[in-house]
Amino acid sequence: MKTDLPTLMQAGNLDALIVLGDAFHNPAMVYFTGVAHVSGALLVVKRDQQPLLFCHAMEREEAAATGIPTRSITDYDYRAIFAESGKDPLRANAQLFQMMLKDAGVTSGRVAVYGQNDAGRAHALLSALEENMPQVEFAAEFHKSTLMQARMTKDTAEVERMRNIARQTTEVVGQVAEFLSSQRAKNDILVDKKGEAITVGTVKSKINLWLAERGLEYPEGTIFAPGREGSVPHNMGNPASPLRLGVPIVFDIFPIEAGGGFFADFTRTWCLGHASDEAQELYADVRFVYETIMTELKPDTRCIDIQGRACQLFAERGHATMAENPATKEGFVHGLAHGLGLDVHEPPTFGRGATEEDILQRNMVVTIEPGLYYPERGLGTRIEDAVYMRPDGKSEILAPYPLDLVIPVKS
Amino acid sequence: MKTDLPTLMQAGNLDALIVLGDAFHNPAMVYFTGVAHVSGALLVVKRDQQPLLFCHAMEREEAAATGIPTRSITDYDYRAIFAESGKDPLRANAQLFQMMLKDAGVTSGRVAVYGQNDAGRAHALLSALEENMPQVEFAAEFHKSTLMQARMTKDTAEVERMRNIARQTTEVVGQVAEFLSSQRAKNDILVDKKGEAITVGTVKSKINLWLAERGLEYPEGTIFAPGREGSVPHNMGNPASPLRLGVPIVFDIFPIEAGGGFFADFTRTWCLGHASDEAQELYADVRFVYETIMTELKPDTRCIDIQGRACQLFAERGHATMAENPATKEGFVHGLAHGLGLDVHEPPTFGRGATEEDILQRNMVVTIEPGLYYPERGLGTRIEDAVYMRPDGKSEILAPYPLDLVIPVKS
Repeated sequence: MKTDLPTLMQAGNLDALIVLGDAFHNPAMVYFTGVAHVSGALLVVKRDQQPLLFCHAMEREEAAATGIPTRSITDYDYRAIFAESGKDPLRANAQLFQMMLKDAGVTSGRVAVYGQNDAGRAHALLSALEENMPQVEFAAEFHKSTLMQARMTKDTAEVERMRNIARQTTEVVGQVAEFLSSQRAKNDILVDKKGEAITVGTVKSKINLWLAERGLEYPEGTIFAPGREGSVPHNMGNPASPLRLGVPIVFDIFPIEAGGGFFADFTRTWCLGHASDEAQELYADVRFVYETIMTELKPDTRCIDIQGRACQLFAERGHATMAENPATKEGFVHGLAHGLGLDVHEPPTFGRGATEEDILQRNMVVTIEPGLYYPERGLGTRIEDAVYMRPDGKSEILAPYPLDLVIPVKS
Repeated sequence: MKTDLPTLMQAGNLDALIVLGDAFHNPAMVYFTGVAHVSGALLVVKRDQQPLLFCHAMEREEAAATGIPTRSITDYDYRAIFAESGKDPLRANAQLFQMMLKDAGVTSGRVAVYGQNDAGRAHALLSALEENMPQVEFAAEFHKSTLMQARMTKDTAEVERMRNIARQTTEVVGQVAEFLSSQRAKNDILVDKKGEAITVGTVKSKINLWLAERGLEYPEGTIFAPGREGSVPHNMGNPASPLRLGVPIVFDIFPIEAGGGFFADFTRTWCLGHASDEAQELYADVRFVYETIMTELKPDTRCIDIQGRACQLFAERGHATMAENPATKEGFVHGLAHGLGLDVHEPPTFGRGATEEDILQRNMVVTIEPGLYYPERGLGTRIEDAVYMRPDGKSEILAPYPLDLVIPVKS
């Protein structure tokens, strides 16, 4: 968590970290600033020191509201810098950043860089800075950066925010269930009062409104994928698709605090009216794995071992898994879990890309999301909850919600 | 526009361009793919060839729906690559990207890189690729990249989409005006039926709902900033602030197509009930500059000359401007205009950072947004419309909306 940062920076041999970009929808920046309407900023955090935020004068009041001491980028004479650089915007910006870093006391040592930016632009700027500032080494962090190691564990206030957004998300899920069960079926298709088919698009419009009413955003959309669509894990669901009774619908919802803060991530699989036999069988297997893993979950476990256990349980029930075939498109085809926070997918990693250093620890919030997918049979099933690994070593679902497969509809 | 890309790539001496990251809220990727729920992808565009999209198997159907030929990242044996790399995630990913680039036919030449990514991660990956692939030169594009040169001019279909979102935005603005004028004042403060103050937060909640109803998102929020708050251009407005009669409110709204497509960008300044004398005077000056610039606007003009003209007009009316003092916080303190598209601020650049190469051209969409700011007097005023420079050389406001300063309220 944030208080670990000085220790983590020391362990990572970092003298400073800098964050580039906006203070909204930019996890690394928001981690320090909170959501603020500050764009194109530079945050400098020297080890064991308070952060310093460089921002444009137009946004000085939004920047000041973050509580972080600020400096004005606008006070640097860009016109003169640009002229001196031979009117080369890259050289001019490298010079400007070097001046800001110097004024923040960063002239040498090992520095990590974070923040959402255009990849090519960031590479060009950092390469130019490396040339300008040979005493500075930009750390080549990749999988689990020093900052991510801090972010991976959550403090009490962060968990409270995550619990809050998880609860609001289950409220919306409840509204969707209520909406669906207040409709009736005609020829096995869900229809409204006028007898017109209720589509995936109808449901998503309502979800968007119910999220907006709570001040939540949904930059990555919502999965509401019936039948065959739900048999490919990240198929979002076709807005035009009708909702057929008995067929499993994968409903995966992952809104974020307004402006880009913490995410929720939650999935249920629903059948309207009744569930077909094969939907029930699949669901029973997923629920069994979900419940077994939930019971067994304990801190200080390697993520690949938890993933392996889920694969073993699915395999025992006759399903293909990533364990024998990492590229399988049938059976259990994805990671069992992932870290959740300011990114919807963050370390620790359980599936593809996991290493032996990915450990489930106290104070982490992770999803647990077993699923089964059979594209040729047109069936997908997933259950997902966000789990907080409490300091006492127990796991706790952030916002419990019923696991019923069938949503009754009016007959 | 997109059809210029082969010519622009030739002029920029680029053999290929690659885009990293998601296909939502990632302008460079969305430019090719449209909004698609595909994450952590790699798009390769070789000069004079069709693009190729590498994506994860879980998202293969979302990727296929883009119409771009796809390859599966999951089909590469990451476990083997990871083991071979000595279990170093950076080396393993550099190896994986090198394999994908090779399979896309990119093994040498000059390559530009785009796409929203973590700055440090992108720099680490591209630096490792530079080492692995000495025959490839990653172009150090910064201010106006080759891709941005294509994006800066819009084709007919793009303009139609921008017109559509601009119109929907003015519809919401109309709803806000209607809402405000259906309220009454008590002691010069706008109140609801119960006599409770209507705040900035009340208005923004309604705006968010009205945007969500239209399927629009607002990742960067909305400025609704009364009085002193509006006197700093990017102050978003304090949710708790009441709305006082006579005081100018800066209302700047910039929603985006769902999932991250084109932006609208629109500003009006309103006084509720009546406008104070000084608000009227300031507004008259801003409106005069707005109308003069609109009349004079013509293609093939240097942006710094248009900016200079606005500064001249404001200076003639006794206001401080960026022309004499780039860091001024009073008077006309920002760029007159900016390009608008998949980014809310994109080239051409008119204010700070503009170069002689920034030219207003046919087929561009730019905002025109003169404003005056007097923090010590608690006054801010801005008018902004999105303007399409038509192929015939005439300028056209994408979605005209009345310029009235005063919004009447019930007495």
